[in-house]
Amino acid sequence: MGSGVEEGPEAIPHGGDLGAARRLFPAAPEPWIDLSTGINPVPYPLPPFEASALHRLPSPDNLARLKTAAAEAYGAPDADHVAAAPGTQILIETLPRLVERTRVAVVGPTYAEHAAAWARGGHAVEVVPDLAGAAGAGVVVAVSPNNPDGRVFSPHDLRRAAAPGGLAVLDQAFADLEDTAPAAPGPGLVVLRSFGKTFGLAGLRLGFALAEPALARRLEAALGPWAVSGPAIAAGCLALPDAGWRREAADARGQDAARLDRMIVRAGGRLIGGTVLFRTAAFADGPGLFRRLGEAGIYVRRFPERPDELRFGLPPDKAAWCRLSRILK
Amino acid sequence: MGSGVEEGPEAIPHGGDLGAARRLFPAAPEPWIDLSTGINPVPYPLPPFEASALHRLPSPDNLARLKTAAAEAYGAPDADHVAAAPGTQILIETLPRLVERTRVAVVGPTYAEHAAAWARGGHAVEVVPDLAGAAGAGVVVAVSPNNPDGRVFSPHDLRRAAAPGGLAVLDQAFADLEDTAPAAPGPGLVVLRSFGKTFGLAGLRLGFALAEPALARRLEAALGPWAVSGPAIAAGCLALPDAGWRREAADARGQDAARLDRMIVRAGGRLIGGTVLFRTAAFADGPGLFRRLGEAGIYVRRFPERPDELRFGLPPDKAAWCRLSRILK
Repeated sequence: MGSGVEEGPEAIPHGGDLGAARRLFPAAPEPWIDLSTGINPVPYPLPPFEASALHRLPSPDNLARLKTAAAEAYGAPDADHVAAAPGTQILIETLPRLVERTRVAVVGPTYAEHAAAWARGGHAVEVVPDLAGAAGAGVVVAVSPNNPDGRVFSPHDLRRAAAPGGLAVLDQAFADLEDTAPAAPGPGLVVLRSFGKTFGLAGLRLGFALAEPALARRLEAALGPWAVSGPAIAAGCLALPDAGWRREAADARGQDAARLDRMIVRAGGRLIGGTVLFRTAAFADGPGLFRRLGEAGIYVRRFPERPDELRFGLPPDKAAWCRLSRILK
Repeated sequence: MGSGVEEGPEAIPHGGDLGAARRLFPAAPEPWIDLSTGINPVPYPLPPFEASALHRLPSPDNLARLKTAAAEAYGAPDADHVAAAPGTQILIETLPRLVERTRVAVVGPTYAEHAAAWARGGHAVEVVPDLAGAAGAGVVVAVSPNNPDGRVFSPHDLRRAAAPGGLAVLDQAFADLEDTAPAAPGPGLVVLRSFGKTFGLAGLRLGFALAEPALARRLEAALGPWAVSGPAIAAGCLALPDAGWRREAADARGQDAARLDRMIVRAGGRLIGGTVLFRTAAFADGPGLFRRLGEAGIYVRRFPERPDELRFGLPPDKAAWCRLSRILK
């Protein structure tokens, strides 16, 4: 095929794919309960979109409003320190292409797309168990709180681990509903924030990088104009400034997480960690529990490389809690 | 800023930015009539989105349904020949990075992002006046029908112009409502199709590349999972199979275009060409007419490098037609 088009990479498996769950457990009762992601099960209440948000090209003025709202919500100095994107995933894909090839240390195990994207960008990537193992790398990447184990890394420690003049990438996809202070971007630090998980609107595709203005502009230029949809801009402008909703969501989901922990422990699970949006635990027979849950129409996240561990998202409603508690006993 | 982040490029000006229009003509009457784009002014009628389209990550199964609908609507062999993206713009950005550096000929003048994206990808780019000027290039790019002059290029001629083993890129962003036959992808040919322009849903961000399966997969892999939003998938699955709507839209917009042509000629314009979604004409005093329209709250597209030319999108309703006809007389 034409001028040297290279071969494609393997896809990384992810949560949230109920089609895959149905193929694994074709006899499971419907409706499925999807606990395989860390998406807030109680979405931000949106009014219907205005026709112009669907019809017109997203306007630079509305995008600027969205970025100002993001800067305020996430503690960045101003909109110039914000790059908006259709989900953080595409920022994870894009960033490695804007940085000169170097040694990259990803603190893991963690969200697998980080290491894969830096490798696709031609960098020498190593997954290291902690920040000590990352010392001196040109780029250091950590997710905080980490997915799936909930470990927390400070931007200060991350930057100290990177080589002088290097880059620290702090993915705070699950930080919004936590007590941890938000990290402000600064020289040598990029912070990623996910709108969809916090506000339960993952289908809209909206995520942000907080970075020095020069890098924020480079990220947006790489995505081209109109990368963020009109509906995503409208939702972000409404939900990001709503600190009250976010506080109540943090409280309510925190109680859900504590309840889930009690169920997991009662079922013999050893809690490893998590965030208010998911809990990870090890079980004597992880594959067996995954199967019992699946046969009951409950899809949780498993990890092929650590078969004893399962990750549970939060049940969305009373019926889902009841069905889950019948298996976790 | 960290490991060798390079400088950003200049932004290319585009239509559709009413904020820019208001800054140019602060005394113009509201509401503005935006004729600066080629977006269908009568959108496809969508029902409200289901909550799950906003809440859940876009599912691989729904994405597969969208790609099957796109393959059928656009005349590609099957879904494997389709890459879906949040707008064709990001495909224009991505494609040059997947092709080995070569000489690229873009038939112009045309949509400026093509040449800019291939240049950003490190290729040697030349804007050539016709396909003869493109002969022997490793990659040949043409928009058909062309924006802004409506010139039509056949996939066969495009592939013949490219060097043996080279790549032809045919951007059919404005082909859906035209009589021209859709181009099926084949070895050495990539076809781009725009959902938002045809269906008047540019804010949703949805576009497609039709290509050989290996290249289609590479394009999607470069965007990463969940690049297309839930609302865009839902709208595409509904609108793409609706051949009746598309036929009626082509008729109605064709009549609009003919009416617009009569107005332009009556106003002393010399028609250059266009599609059923926009008309381009030269005027004795293009900058003067642009200003008179702007002062009346009507925003059309001008071209800094060809000041006599103006491009008109279609007025959306009777009031807009009346206001336009008061200036074009």
